[in-house]
Amino acid sequence: NSDISDLNKPTVPSNRVSQIMRYGFPGLDNIRAFDDYVLSYDRRNRTAHWVFEHLNRDNTKHNDNVSRDKCEFFEDDSVHEYFRAKNSDYKKSGYDRGHLAAAANHRHSDSAMQQTFVLSNMAPQVGKGFNRDAWAMLEKYVRSLTKHFVNVYVCTGPLYLPRYENDGKLYVKYEVIGKNNVAVPTHFYKIVACEDKNGQIELLSFVMPNQPLPDNLQLNAYLVPLDTIERASGFLFFDKLPRNLVKRINGKKT
Amino acid sequence: NSDISDLNKPTVPSNRVSQIMRYGFPGLDNIRAFDDYVLSYDRRNRTAHWVFEHLNRDNTKHNDNVSRDKCEFFEDDSVHEYFRAKNSDYKKSGYDRGHLAAAANHRHSDSAMQQTFVLSNMAPQVGKGFNRDAWAMLEKYVRSLTKHFVNVYVCTGPLYLPRYENDGKLYVKYEVIGKNNVAVPTHFYKIVACEDKNGQIELLSFVMPNQPLPDNLQLNAYLVPLDTIERASGFLFFDKLPRNLVKRINGKKT
Ligand SMILES: [Mg+2]
Ligand SMILES: [Mg+2]
Repeated sequence: NSDISDLNKPTVPSNRVSQIMRYGFPGLDNIRAFDDYVLSYDRRNRTAHWVFEHLNRDNTKHNDNVSRDKCEFFEDDSVHEYFRAKNSDYKKSGYDRGHLAAAANHRHSDSAMQQTFVLSNMAPQVGKGFNRDAWAMLEKYVRSLTKHFVNVYVCTGPLYLPRYENDGKLYVKYEVIGKNNVAVPTHFYKIVACEDKNGQIELLSFVMPNQPLPDNLQLNAYLVPLDTIERASGFLFFDKLPRNLVKRINGKKT
Repeated sequence: NSDISDLNKPTVPSNRVSQIMRYGFPGLDNIRAFDDYVLSYDRRNRTAHWVFEHLNRDNTKHNDNVSRDKCEFFEDDSVHEYFRAKNSDYKKSGYDRGHLAAAANHRHSDSAMQQTFVLSNMAPQVGKGFNRDAWAMLEKYVRSLTKHFVNVYVCTGPLYLPRYENDGKLYVKYEVIGKNNVAVPTHFYKIVACEDKNGQIELLSFVMPNQPLPDNLQLNAYLVPLDTIERASGFLFFDKLPRNLVKRINGKKT
């Protein structure tokens, strides 16, 4: 059926998409390909399902001519207006427009950085103590991995985790903001596959709650088994990565 | 990219799929095609996004040899075990395994009816007052439309609607049951496109809360504008249906 492939066609040259998505698509729902990252949009929650980046020493290099001060958040016109997040949804919500693909990962070019400011790449994040602090530290740490590894593949997204309530039952509960009911994720995940010069892989998978976190952050404390994220999100990550290449998972030898 | 089409390929002859899906796929995520209905699976919530059926006088005809007593609920092995609902998830949950594609819509053949008992076609429904009563009445009403129309296209699915809480903020909240966290939808929708012998269409779109509803049910009271369901679900329904053919929407002339 031709419907099935048409809607999901990448919109940029497929060679960069193939590089970024080298180890498999977590899912094929509403794919958007930008110059330097690939996104799957969750039309029900008005934020991404997942965002995929491919970092290395070159493309994360600082460029004095590129600055986020020139960038402005913009709505994603490719998303039907019924499902589109707007800047007005975030206004007075108390939440930051938090990047999933981090702006600073794309500072090699104006247009690549500008493209990270599309609202499809945002999710409502607690500002102080999270987006501007703990989460930013995690982003910085992931960027720093390009010093030690040849290729760093990063998949980032929201989670909506259940909690027990007083009645002993388990509930998923999350706020939705603005006229367009943009979902406020309870948590965010970041899964990182680091490839060394011998093609060997180290996997890291983090989950952080969307709330102010302590200053004396130990990133290790937020490592979780990959399948925890997979079960909660409904996606399989890096499923085309040959498991015999994976030498470490969350710091432990395999 | 060949990945994108492979995963979503229909698994039954495409002519029946094309008939059922004649007026467009609401989405292309995790499509499962059965002999007589088509389903999109929500791997995060362990139930369907939507289920599509094509009813007419012939295929809803009663067949004495077909009985739901012979049918058993079964797990969907085509779904990865991380995302699969199990019979044990429903056990002692207090909820029925509620059909989305109704069993009685497929009583022309044993195998067609049996296929509606896959757990991917189930969602946790309140039994008394809803699955066994109000919702069953709606199903029966939709079936009865085949007496007056040549083709009846039915799309059915769950909703997770937000509500205001005491803090004045809007929250989506729903229970999840069993070890696999099967989501309990807050509401269900059913959208029906009825085609008469002249090819003219009447559209009906219902939303019912997943709770016991009064006995003296007036189905009209559950009609809602189609875009309410579209915005809440993240899908566009019947988007390939030429709007000039639609003569009535929810009982009103267009
Ligand atoms: Mg940020
Ligand atoms: Mg039922």
